[in-house]
Amino acid sequence: MGKIKTIGILTSGGDAPGMNAAIRAVTRAGIYNGFEIKGVYRGYEGLITDDIKPFTTENVSGIIGQGGTILKTARSKGFKTMEGRQQAYDNLVKEGIDALVVIGGNGSLTGAMMFAQEFDFCCIGLPGTIDNDLYGTDSTIGYDTTMNTIMECVDRIRDTAQSHERIFFVEVMGRDAGFLAQNSAIASGAEAAIIPEDSTNVDQLGRFMERGIRKSKRSCIVIVSESPKCGAMYYADRVRKEFPDYDVRVSILGHLQRGGRPSARDRILASSTGVGAIEAIMQGQRNIMVGVRNNEVVYVPLSEAIRSDKPFDKKLIKVLDELSI
Amino acid sequence: MGKIKTIGILTSGGDAPGMNAAIRAVTRAGIYNGFEIKGVYRGYEGLITDDIKPFTTENVSGIIGQGGTILKTARSKGFKTMEGRQQAYDNLVKEGIDALVVIGGNGSLTGAMMFAQEFDFCCIGLPGTIDNDLYGTDSTIGYDTTMNTIMECVDRIRDTAQSHERIFFVEVMGRDAGFLAQNSAIASGAEAAIIPEDSTNVDQLGRFMERGIRKSKRSCIVIVSESPKCGAMYYADRVRKEFPDYDVRVSILGHLQRGGRPSARDRILASSTGVGAIEAIMQGQRNIMVGVRNNEVVYVPLSEAIRSDKPFDKKLIKVLDELSI
Amino acid sequence: MGKIKTIGILTSGGDAPGMNAAIRAVTRAGIYNGFEIKGVYRGYEGLITDDIKPFTTENVSGIIGQGGTILKTARSKGFKTMEGRQQAYDNLVKEGIDALVVIGGNGSLTGAMMFAQEFDFCCIGLPGTIDNDLYGTDSTIGYDTTMNTIMECVDRIRDTAQSHERIFFVEVMGRDAGFLAQNSAIASGAEAAIIPEDSTNVDQLGRFMERGIRKSKRSCIVIVSESPKCGAMYYADRVRKEFPDYDVRVSILGHLQRGGRPSARDRILASSTGVGAIEAIMQGQRNIMVGVRNNEVVYVPLSEAIRSDKPFDKKLIKVLDELSI
Amino acid sequence: MGKIKTIGILTSGGDAPGMNAAIRAVTRAGIYNGFEIKGVYRGYEGLITDDIKPFTTENVSGIIGQGGTILKTARSKGFKTMEGRQQAYDNLVKEGIDALVVIGGNGSLTGAMMFAQEFDFCCIGLPGTIDNDLYGTDSTIGYDTTMNTIMECVDRIRDTAQSHERIFFVEVMGRDAGFLAQNSAIASGAEAAIIPEDSTNVDQLGRFMERGIRKSKRSCIVIVSESPKCGAMYYADRVRKEFPDYDVRVSILGHLQRGGRPSARDRILASSTGVGAIEAIMQGQRNIMVGVRNNEVVYVPLSEAIRSDKPFDKKLIKVLDELSI
Repeated sequence: MGKIKTIGILTSGGDAPGMNAAIRAVTRAGIYNGFEIKGVYRGYEGLITDDIKPFTTENVSGIIGQGGTILKTARSKGFKTMEGRQQAYDNLVKEGIDALVVIGGNGSLTGAMMFAQEFDFCCIGLPGTIDNDLYGTDSTIGYDTTMNTIMECVDRIRDTAQSHERIFFVEVMGRDAGFLAQNSAIASGAEAAIIPEDSTNVDQLGRFMERGIRKSKRSCIVIVSESPKCGAMYYADRVRKEFPDYDVRVSILGHLQRGGRPSARDRILASSTGVGAIEAIMQGQRNIMVGVRNNEVVYVPLSEAIRSDKPFDKKLIKVLDELSI
Repeated sequence: MGKIKTIGILTSGGDAPGMNAAIRAVTRAGIYNGFEIKGVYRGYEGLITDDIKPFTTENVSGIIGQGGTILKTARSKGFKTMEGRQQAYDNLVKEGIDALVVIGGNGSLTGAMMFAQEFDFCCIGLPGTIDNDLYGTDSTIGYDTTMNTIMECVDRIRDTAQSHERIFFVEVMGRDAGFLAQNSAIASGAEAAIIPEDSTNVDQLGRFMERGIRKSKRSCIVIVSESPKCGAMYYADRVRKEFPDYDVRVSILGHLQRGGRPSARDRILASSTGVGAIEAIMQGQRNIMVGVRNNEVVYVPLSEAIRSDKPFDKKLIKVLDELSI
Repeated sequence: MGKIKTIGILTSGGDAPGMNAAIRAVTRAGIYNGFEIKGVYRGYEGLITDDIKPFTTENVSGIIGQGGTILKTARSKGFKTMEGRQQAYDNLVKEGIDALVVIGGNGSLTGAMMFAQEFDFCCIGLPGTIDNDLYGTDSTIGYDTTMNTIMECVDRIRDTAQSHERIFFVEVMGRDAGFLAQNSAIASGAEAAIIPEDSTNVDQLGRFMERGIRKSKRSCIVIVSESPKCGAMYYADRVRKEFPDYDVRVSILGHLQRGGRPSARDRILASSTGVGAIEAIMQGQRNIMVGVRNNEVVYVPLSEAIRSDKPFDKKLIKVLDELSI
Repeated sequence: MGKIKTIGILTSGGDAPGMNAAIRAVTRAGIYNGFEIKGVYRGYEGLITDDIKPFTTENVSGIIGQGGTILKTARSKGFKTMEGRQQAYDNLVKEGIDALVVIGGNGSLTGAMMFAQEFDFCCIGLPGTIDNDLYGTDSTIGYDTTMNTIMECVDRIRDTAQSHERIFFVEVMGRDAGFLAQNSAIASGAEAAIIPEDSTNVDQLGRFMERGIRKSKRSCIVIVSESPKCGAMYYADRVRKEFPDYDVRVSILGHLQRGGRPSARDRILASSTGVGAIEAIMQGQRNIMVGVRNNEVVYVPLSEAIRSDKPFDKKLIKVLDELSI
């Protein structure tokens, strides 16, 4: 491996607010430090189809506050095949790209790790996902914005829940992780959260309803994490059956959780880790994710970052429990 | 009818942002002009159950910016029966209430009109509904806020639509009226709107898709008005069948459209018509709705206000058409 | 004058949220109807320096929600001279521009009117100003957004005013017109507004203070319209002198009032009048401003639009008076 | 010291968004764990004047999202005297309050520490200040919200800065700490920040202007931390003198930075530390501040918390430097 001169950037997987701030930071810090920067469009698919353009500071002007990703994103079937990845590698060589910064979540960083190993290529990951399910970083780019978006939606739903004295089950994103559900429940003053990490969901709901009825609270809000097994509809139906007197409603927040102007924290996280990615490359780091722990930029091996057991702070369950009396 | 001394207020039907600003305005302007004010809880149901409390300026302190309604709202089955209405009237007499200000939409004002006729009682309506479907007022309390809420949601959805190059069908409220759908489509720069007022919906969609495909726009957003017949799901399925290559998604905004802090315009509308309701009572008006036309407060007979044919400005269809090329 | 084929657009004077939505509407509706569109940069200055570029729909893609103006704006000294205007005209001829759409406020539309008369040139104005001081249109592009921005700022200031029990004088924009001050005072539940249209300002303040002290309200907010004579500082000082026990503070909102993402209403107004400008040109209209009255697009002679006596609804003073008891 | 049964809460010093969420958390967690809760009004002043009321969950209902503090806040001259503090202590004894939770910043927690030592009284601090200048906690309650508020204001100011091609100096709060200025500069994509921690301010400005002029950027934004020495006006004047061609403007954000609905992160921080305060009391902790480090609730001795040298991450200066090229 010679000296790195040209760096490619791509965004992959579900889009997250702050991805543009990260693209901007990598581009500007790269140029500041003498690198050439190239933008790869539509994630790994763009590597295969050679959808790659040189980037100057102009390309990233005014994007720090924009949601989504100007590089677009896509799921690539081709990249899951050996032929696809070989094609991707050939295009990287053709374009003169020596290192790749991949902004994405669990699946995307897994792809980066495999590609890095297969072709001995320098891949640097940035944690770009609203789900906060990457190991080794206190937060992921997009998580804080989405938490605020959910909170604002629940604030709105509470207005109508209280006016009509209804029970709302609000379904939020988060894949297999309950970070968004649990924390947005605390932030919005919800009465309960149903999350994958807590195996006592059914009892949870039972306890909650019992208590709710004991207190005869007339309106309440339960945040439900999306999950393959059972969502807000399931729980709403259960409550409707057992307590036919209650006026039960469901709200599935859906895709609007992904968009919007990134929060200050997400922009700062994206900026710090973006600058950190260029530093990592200059230090000869490879196949790591740049995260932030305790307000400091850290390097986490990609294999570590994608571990599936990011610890969930069980004390937050206690916090919500005590505050929803 | 003797001189009116005590005025009751209630909110009825679906809650709308700005209802609290209206409650505040009626209460303060009423007290300013020497009336006694009483708050009736849970709409007409509160008349029947005598859920009524004296109001001072304290009761409405700090509520101008709150969504929902502090008086709560409910659908009342009892009020649809003669016995129920008689009970309501008896309670009004018992409480010494001489006039009633009803803040609500079409159904609620219809109820007010019938009650007024039946018992020769002074009822004044305020147009409180997000749907903007009341005749004789340029806008209804809640409509402007909800339009902004929808627009902000669609702005968010567009971020992800563009990043993933998807087609989104976004379903919005509005009952049988397309005001919210058409105007929020223009405001959010959507590519099309499907509204009840336009009978050529199916052709609309066809034209739109044809044109979309001709232009090969890679992402687009269609706003669909909720309606008994067919919502966003229906249209999404049709497009999926005819154009299997497109990545089509649906977002049903749901109840979050009702809540939130009211916009400046809704607060001003609620304040002006609230003051107007007290003036109307002082002038001896009865059974009218207070609205705003051309920036002036107007009185509209309740029978007129609830007409079902509020004119829809067809030119807005042209505006959206030309701007979505 | 032959048939109009090419239309120039410029923004002039202080920027206003929604100007971009108007640029987009003129461009798209123009292209839809077969015109060529050219963007003129930096207002009238760009006419003189020939800073003009052809516009396609690409140029206006994604700008409907952006504050400011992509065409930039400037005050032009040159355009006030005969030589400057001659140069501007020569460049228009050179560029093949047959008609000019000017988006701006009072001063900018006055310039357009004079230029139109001097060179017999087709000028169409759009009401682009946060001040709402143009005659013949119910609202101007930017006014609704700025009113909401002010209201949100005052909502924030109220939090701290109540927590510390302080009197705040908040100075807002509006040039010689009190629309912003009076209406944002109503919308934010302020205790008083001091506006240029009401000559009894000093008495107003006196009455207000007397009443406030009688009621011993512990915190209150007074909105003060900027004006050449006396602003928030002046009134704050007066109160400090007469009532040294009060904790009096001043907040001058300043330039942040101009920016931000336009509200739904401003985007719709900009879109409707933008489409209306193209229609007006197709109908052979000249030297008019396109406004909206009673939800309908109207044409107002430029000479009328810039009249200095846009009527101020005095009833709003009564509304604020009754609601601030 | 016997067993603690009754806990008083007060807010002191400048108000901060999230203080209400903290009051709610202390109240609810206190009641959940069997304590009696009393609210003290107007900070330490309320201790002296015995302005104290019993609190139930009703008192804190619906306040999680409200800015300011329902307990109000004030600077107390009396509390700085021995007589005042003795009076405060006597009232605490009279009210049966065994422990005091003080929500406030540096000055307020210093007062709590001194009082705790003087009267051997159990005081627990919560970090309530927008300035983030308390040692031992990653963030303070209010800091995240204020950072977002500043960012949104600067986003707005940028719209007008770019449209008019101006240089803006924006002055923000933060007392002697540059956290708000530096981080909001990164978040808003500002071109430079002038902060107290960096002694090379003058050179900073010089370097920045040189570079700015070299690049001939036509608009830019400099965030200036408020400080006793020199604020935004000072720097603006210097630039005006040296570069008379530039259009230089100043915006002093002022008190609106304190208010507003708290962000998700501030509500979660307030909720976690509020629950933590009750736990601390149950564990027999005294004279500590409850903070959060690395997503975990920690106890920091009050003497430590108020140290004046909270470390400022110098790398953030590098981040801003590289990103503002």
